[in-house]
Amino acid sequence: MHSERSKRIIAALLKSNFDAVICTSASAVLLLTGYWPVMGASAAAISKEGEAHVILPEDEVELAEHSSGAFLVPYRPSSLVRITTTIQALADPFCSLTTRLGLSRARIGIETDEGMQPASYITSVDFHSSLALLLRQILPHADFVSCSETIEQMKAIKTSKELEVMRLAATIAASGFAAAAAQIEPGKREAEVAGALHSAFQSSNRGDHVERSDGLFFCMSGPNSAKAAAAYARTRQRKIEEGDLVMIHANTCADGYWTDITRTYTAGAPTERQNAMRVAIAEARSAALSAIRPGAMAREVDGAARSVMASHGFEKAFKHSTGHGVGFAAANGNALPRIHPQSTDVLEKGMTFNIEPAAYFDGYGGMRHCDVVAVTSNGAEVLTEF
Amino acid sequence: MHSERSKRIIAALLKSNFDAVICTSASAVLLLTGYWPVMGASAAAISKEGEAHVILPEDEVELAEHSSGAFLVPYRPSSLVRITTTIQALADPFCSLTTRLGLSRARIGIETDEGMQPASYITSVDFHSSLALLLRQILPHADFVSCSETIEQMKAIKTSKELEVMRLAATIAASGFAAAAAQIEPGKREAEVAGALHSAFQSSNRGDHVERSDGLFFCMSGPNSAKAAAAYARTRQRKIEEGDLVMIHANTCADGYWTDITRTYTAGAPTERQNAMRVAIAEARSAALSAIRPGAMAREVDGAARSVMASHGFEKAFKHSTGHGVGFAAANGNALPRIHPQSTDVLEKGMTFNIEPAAYFDGYGGMRHCDVVAVTSNGAEVLTEF
Repeated sequence: MHSERSKRIIAALLKSNFDAVICTSASAVLLLTGYWPVMGASAAAISKEGEAHVILPEDEVELAEHSSGAFLVPYRPSSLVRITTTIQALADPFCSLTTRLGLSRARIGIETDEGMQPASYITSVDFHSSLALLLRQILPHADFVSCSETIEQMKAIKTSKELEVMRLAATIAASGFAAAAAQIEPGKREAEVAGALHSAFQSSNRGDHVERSDGLFFCMSGPNSAKAAAAYARTRQRKIEEGDLVMIHANTCADGYWTDITRTYTAGAPTERQNAMRVAIAEARSAALSAIRPGAMAREVDGAARSVMASHGFEKAFKHSTGHGVGFAAANGNALPRIHPQSTDVLEKGMTFNIEPAAYFDGYGGMRHCDVVAVTSNGAEVLTEF
Repeated sequence: MHSERSKRIIAALLKSNFDAVICTSASAVLLLTGYWPVMGASAAAISKEGEAHVILPEDEVELAEHSSGAFLVPYRPSSLVRITTTIQALADPFCSLTTRLGLSRARIGIETDEGMQPASYITSVDFHSSLALLLRQILPHADFVSCSETIEQMKAIKTSKELEVMRLAATIAASGFAAAAAQIEPGKREAEVAGALHSAFQSSNRGDHVERSDGLFFCMSGPNSAKAAAAYARTRQRKIEEGDLVMIHANTCADGYWTDITRTYTAGAPTERQNAMRVAIAEARSAALSAIRPGAMAREVDGAARSVMASHGFEKAFKHSTGHGVGFAAANGNALPRIHPQSTDVLEKGMTFNIEPAAYFDGYGGMRHCDVVAVTSNGAEVLTEF
């Protein structure tokens, strides 16, 4: 499978002098093989020649066959005659595969550094340090080196095929937002609104384009919308009141590719203050979008949005960076490129990230408009133009 | 906070000869301190004297204050003037805390073994081996030992307070199932049904008893319900047909405590075959429940259900174990106690697990009835009696 992605992987391994990389985090397995594991109990092994393998639980084979051109190595995690842990079940397949790939004295990239991982299922495997230990036992003469940076750099720039799935993910997410304005009314609880939007999203007919799609919709109203400046969103039981700012935030996923979208509504007619916030945020968004092009510094894009917010008097209210990489995870402030005042990242064609100008006032409310965008040859494509 | 849980922790540390344990997985932080972290960027440190601390991002302090009696040590993960990773942000607080606790030459339990972790947010931190490395750098003369087994054993037996939250979690989950029968009709797609039940669940008024509650509802119909024998559930776009078995599975969560519930309906009047499956499963469930008491072998409970299924001719159709521990995670087949033919676990009062007799026929369909139960002084309490 010497696809666009495969070629990039081979080039990255060559550049970092890896004979192979072995990864288990769901987003890295997706990047390396096209398969997005369910339970986190799968491993991708890819050689510098581009030979890709997935060791995976046998009950995930059907899903992997539909999405990956890699060679599949199924294993049986547990059975009625034997109780095994994932690491025990992985030992034999790892032994066979590394022998076949001739990795006994190889320089092998593994994930050692901390990183943000999206939730692929309601429960998933956390290997802690057991996997690194197993690999060192199996291959005592191999050299294990962190490949975390190599993986994160590759994740930043999507292939044209990956961009297609991200566009699709954005289109599906739109179905939840389409229902939003009609749902927001005084007296309704935040959880009711969030539930209705998730339902609209989940019910939208997605045909055969996506195997797995899910995600969360959050609703934060009045003073709670000011708390959305935190690293996480949270739906509460508060009843929406007339005049509230009502922020709807969604992180949805299509076959492992994530969106990060926010829209802010008003319950009833907007006040002058709310209109002023909306005007500033719209201008900041336009300024950021105009600054996006290959070769631009990511911090210039942040600066473009930030100076507009400042010119409207909202400098202190815009509490976070203008954006961060989106795609292989939804909410990861350190995903490349970081659209942040201190960022040293340079934009390249195919990078995808969010642009989320916002203003938060403790005790009153917050407004944020968050889009997912892609860097094109000469500018920005907004994937969430709705 | 020398509560029931705190006393058990002190006893467990004494028994394993730990001076302290330091854990970052969300379920372990919940167990040790009562706080269920959002982003997985928190660490619990608890000494053998029972002094509990949580190092946590400052934007999670409000949530932690409501749920934990531990001493809170907030840190700032990133800011507009500095880009930091979680591990960088954790270095200073870990340094101060371990100095204050006098751990420079201590025997410290850390999580090294692989385990299943519930999703606490849409994205969360995976430390890989970076945390173990950081701790060894900070405390070069300390002795780091795996505490995974100690933690898993503690998770198995809930305190009376933890049981209360699990009862509440089950009650909230019931609101989704209450809407199920009315939603299931020929022509509706699985995703529509799942969306409606999630919405009913999320909209149910939960008052002030639970800070955070979410989860997933899955719908699997006809032949898809047979695939529910896998380790994971999956909602698809299939339209329900007259005569289908329709399986509704939910994993919901209240403040970090999880449920694992399945009910199976029929679209239209049940056939003879479906009735036979239902009778066998109901009998198997009763047999399993009757076998539950402190001191019973977990495998006897599995055997009780399995022999009933066999007597109805469903031995091969009952493809998985009768149950596994539920509470600190939803779907973890290795959570204690394992209600499995090969299990060596002995039931104790306060253990919580699921009982899920089932019959799956490839190409036709599957039926499962999954309850969460607790071991009482002399039998079983069904937490999901609806």
